[in-house]
Amino acid sequence: MSRPGGNPALTEHQFTTDREEPCTAKLQVRVPPSMLDELKEYQNWQEIVRQVLAEELVKLRKQKKTG
Amino acid sequence: MSRPGGNPALTEHQFTTDREEPCTAKLQVRVPPSMLDELKEYQNWQEIVRQVLAEELVKLRKQKKTG
Repeated sequence: MSRPGGNPALTEHQFTTDREEPCTAKLQVRVPPSMLDELKEYQNWQEIVRQVLAEELVKLRKQKKTG
Repeated sequence: MSRPGGNPALTEHQFTTDREEPCTAKLQVRVPPSMLDELKEYQNWQEIVRQVLAEELVKLRKQKKTG
């Protein structure tokens, strides 16, 4: 919904995503500062985190089935 | 430092860690809700996250050197 005086066609211009599922949940984990610093050197570090977690979950799922 | 009236020997009893480096930095990343839900099914999910990130950083470091 656009605010009064705002862009009447906001929905045409606002942020959208091509992802299958939008990244709306917030993952918060405490980590060693050196790890966080090193990770943030990479421009796409958020995407790196999502990628490795997705891969890890696939592994864990398999372990569950076989274990 | 102990507060007035508090445990005068607080440092002997307060939380400490055996880690090489304490987990004092906070990693915050937006992820798909389904990923977060699945991850949190594991009791030690924070440790899982730290572990896969540590492994990924090792890989990325090697790529930097060779690439």
